[in-house]
Parts: sequence; C-alpha cells; structure tokens
Amino acid sequence: MKLVRYGKSGNEKPAVLVDTTLYDVTAIIGDFDDSFFTENGIEKLHEYIASDDAEGIELTDDVRLGPPITGVSKIVCVGLNYAKHAAESGMDVPTEPVLFFKATTAITGPFDDVVIPKGSTKTDWEVELAVVIGKKASYVAKESAMDYVAGYMVHNDVSEREFQLEKGGQWVKGKSCDTFAPIGPYLVTKDEISNPHDLNLWLKLNGKTMQSSNTSDLVFDIPTLVSYISEYMTLLPGDIISTGTPFGVGLGLNPPLYLKPGDVMELGIDGLGVSKQTAIAYKSK
Amino acid sequence: MKLVRYGKSGNEKPAVLVDTTLYDVTAIIGDFDDSFFTENGIEKLHEYIASDDAEGIELTDDVRLGPPITGVSKIVCVGLNYAKHAAESGMDVPTEPVLFFKATTAITGPFDDVVIPKGSTKTDWEVELAVVIGKKASYVAKESAMDYVAGYMVHNDVSEREFQLEKGGQWVKGKSCDTFAPIGPYLVTKDEISNPHDLNLWLKLNGKTMQSSNTSDLVFDIPTLVSYISEYMTLLPGDIISTGTPFGVGLGLNPPLYLKPGDVMELGIDGLGVSKQTAIAYKSK
Repeated sequence: MKLVRYGKSGNEKPAVLVDTTLYDVTAIIGDFDDSFFTENGIEKLHEYIASDDAEGIELTDDVRLGPPITGVSKIVCVGLNYAKHAAESGMDVPTEPVLFFKATTAITGPFDDVVIPKGSTKTDWEVELAVVIGKKASYVAKESAMDYVAGYMVHNDVSEREFQLEKGGQWVKGKSCDTFAPIGPYLVTKDEISNPHDLNLWLKLNGKTMQSSNTSDLVFDIPTLVSYISEYMTLLPGDIISTGTPFGVGLGLNPPLYLKPGDVMELGIDGLGVSKQTAIAYKSK
Repeated sequence: MKLVRYGKSGNEKPAVLVDTTLYDVTAIIGDFDDSFFTENGIEKLHEYIASDDAEGIELTDDVRLGPPITGVSKIVCVGLNYAKHAAESGMDVPTEPVLFFKATTAITGPFDDVVIPKGSTKTDWEVELAVVIGKKASYVAKESAMDYVAGYMVHNDVSEREFQLEKGGQWVKGKSCDTFAPIGPYLVTKDEISNPHDLNLWLKLNGKTMQSSNTSDLVFDIPTLVSYISEYMTLLPGDIISTGTPFGVGLGLNPPLYLKPGDVMELGIDGLGVSKQTAIAYKSK
C-alpha cells in the first residue's frame, strides 16, 4: 500500500494512493502519525480500501503531496554506509554503523523547494532509502528486527558541507536546516517490497545522473541497523532511519559541485517512487 | 513561576508550584507542550494563580514529579562550553559552539532512576543549565535572542563515554539511551531568574561534590547559543538547549570513575531546584 499526505503545508490529509486515485482516510485513522502505527492503522486501511465505502478522487498535478508521515520523533541517519561513498568523502568504511541525527524540523514534502540556507555555498544532495519504524523498538535482535519496520520512503538527505565539516564538532549543523529532509512521495508498506536489499536508487541533477547504485551495496543492512540503533536508544513508531547515501554526491566531485538556485534534483528508488525538488535561495520572511 | 508535571510516568498532569502547594492547571492550559508556549500559556497561568479560582494541594513526598515539559521536538546540546571541562575531556576550547542532539526518548523525571544501559561500563554524569524555547526561532539576532527563551531547568546530560567516543563517528550513541535526560524538578520561567549567567551549578555523587561551577564561566552565553543554533535549524516552542557541563565529570578523573548500580546523583542550580537520581542496572522487560 502507498500512503501519502496531500494538501497545503501544515494542513495535509492522509490518503491511500491506488494507481492515480487518492482515497482520503482522515475519517478512518486520523493521520499517519505514531498512533496510526501503534494502533494497527495499516490493517484498518487494508479493510477500508477493500470495502465498498472507499471513494477516491483523482490525483492531479495541482494536488500538493506533503511528507507521507507526521509527528516524527527522530530521524536517525547512518553515515558512510556505502563503501564507495565513504571513499569519496575521504573516510574509511566504518566497522560499526556511524549514526547522527537530523532535526525533524527539516522534514518537507517530496516536491517542495529546497532552501539553500543563508550564507551557504556548499549545499549538497544525498538520495537515501529511509526506513519507517512501525512499533517501539528497544534492544531488538537482528533476527526479529524486520518486525519493527512499517515501510520505506525515498529521502533526500540534503547536507551543507561547510556547516557539517568545517564548523567544529559534530555533523548535525549541516544536516538540520529547514527543507533539508524531503521525504516521499509515499510511504510504501513493507509487504509491497519483496527485497529491500535489492533496490536501485538514483539521483539526477538537472537531468544528469549523479548517483546510481543499489541497496545491495549497503555496508550494514536494514536488520543490522534497526537492531544496532535500538541498543543505543528506543525507536518509536514513525521514527525514520535513513540508511545512507551511495557514491556521487557533490562533495566527492573534482572540483566539488554544489547546488545553485534553480537547480533541480530528481531522485527515486525502485518501487518507492520519484521525488523532485528545486533549489532556491533563502529569503527572509 | 515554577511549572511542574506530577503523577505516574506517561500520565503526568501540569501544575504550578507555589512554595509547597501544587495548583493543577490541566483545565486551564492542557499540558506544558508546544501549544502551551505558542498560545501565551504562561500569561494565562499568571492570571489563574492570581484569581480566586485557584485551589491547591500539598506537594508531599509520595507525589512523583515527571519531566516539567512534554512533546519536546528536539534537545540540542552544546559540547565543551566550559573551558575547564574541555581540558578534562582532552579537547580544545571550541571557537564556535559544538552542537549535538540527544534523543527526546531519553527524557525522564527529575527523581526517576537512571538506567545504566546493557553492556555499559562508562556511564557518566553532567549537570547542565537547560534553556527552554518559548517561540519559534529561525535566524534570530543575538540582541533579541532572549525574547525566544521561556525559562530554565536543571538537566543531567547523562553520557556513556564508550558509546560516545569509542564506537566510531558521532556522539549521539552515548547521549540518547532511555533515562539519560532527567530534567527538572521545575521549569522556572524567565522572569524569575534575574541573571542566568550568574548561577551556581553543582553535582554530588553519593554526597561528595564532583562538579561545582557557575554559569558565568560559559564559553558561549545563552543569547549567543540561541542565535547561533537558529542559523542551523528552526527551534520550536518547548525545544531544549542544554548549555554544556562544567569540570568534574567521571571521564576527567584519574583514574576515571563511572556510575555503578546504587550510586546517587544529586544536582542543582541556583533558583532552579535540585534533582536526584539513583543509578540502576538495566533489566530486560
């Protein structure tokens, strides 16, 4: 099942997308938040869509899609989780997962603009497979880790390299600016993806392919990550694990290439759809 | 005004504490969350407490105090923000603020037990002045930064040094375990603290003073931190900035000293009250 949230920013409504038909499910489940996952929302939706009550509307180009989930308590990102990307970043392939957080205030819709922050000259792209947690996970064994996964999304882990690497200390400064986490177009439920470790993922900048890889190249796979992270913190329903980006970011080019206003990023993952964002300059409100 | 939340974990109710009298304010403001700050909740409470409607109950020893605020979107911590603590950590005094996140799932009440995580041998204490944000802050100037502060709390930034420093990558792994963020006893509103840059703060371990300093020793003061952080992310009402810990953590001792089950930490800051936590061993549920 493909879950989307549609409507104006801050007033999105939850819907199930079947082909190009949107089934609004506000009345059935409220919204795609932690309670939705906790209260078997996905099952309720399967029943509703199979029933005669379901009435759809056409998803047309003028309908905005927002982030597919809301009320996210944390975004846990995994660094350097593709060997070739570690190399282009000038770092070693890690022997255990490298974790960092991205502020949830960075979350934005899959087709919204990405704002280049004030003073930024090194805003960069990163296509990533994001895993959405379906139930509370603490000290979960690798063998049962997939039971805690609700589904998957495309995530552009937008990163400002000067803020991340040249401002002292930790990476969080370069990862948390507003609009730095476009997610979606959909949350695709786990049952629809037969093998999450064999998905092509790619990103194009202004039509040119910059990143192209496959999740089979992940250094640490999804069960390993869920289990590992759950040793260091409790994961809540709706939390996001972003599994790392492959080779081909702007930082790794010679010379490096960063986003300018007007640049268009298009990114996708097999079975999870395609998102598209235009970079724009920061304007004070 | 001193704001507390009392009752069983997960079912706390908001109250104003006047001397030892609790005034339940559930009916007035709901809870101490982002809407409370956004909707001028503090003013509403001032009116209520001054009115004849306010009826209090005595705060007795059997009443549990929970975290004074709820629905926190992020905890932004500042590293190495006291010169002598940077030295004991073997690091330089930073030239700009070092930031890292702590998972909000780590938040716990001021008198709750601190759980030493499974496999941990290096769980450590850190008394810190925590600043609570009162309104949405993005690119805020230093001069107006204090307008965005709602108040202050005591925070024990509990840290696992092996997880933080010896597991590869970023600090987040050593900062985010459950119970690693006891906050309170109260949120003290800004108007009650005439100078937040002249507060003694201290921590005792089993009755022995381990940390004793003053917020006048902060490398980066509160307006600088609010302004700086707001350049890299949007701060929401209820977000916490933890301003860093002074000299005297277990990591800095020779030999280092870490928490064992049964150890008692007591910590306080002038005007913000005293919290107390007992370290206990992890038990699987």
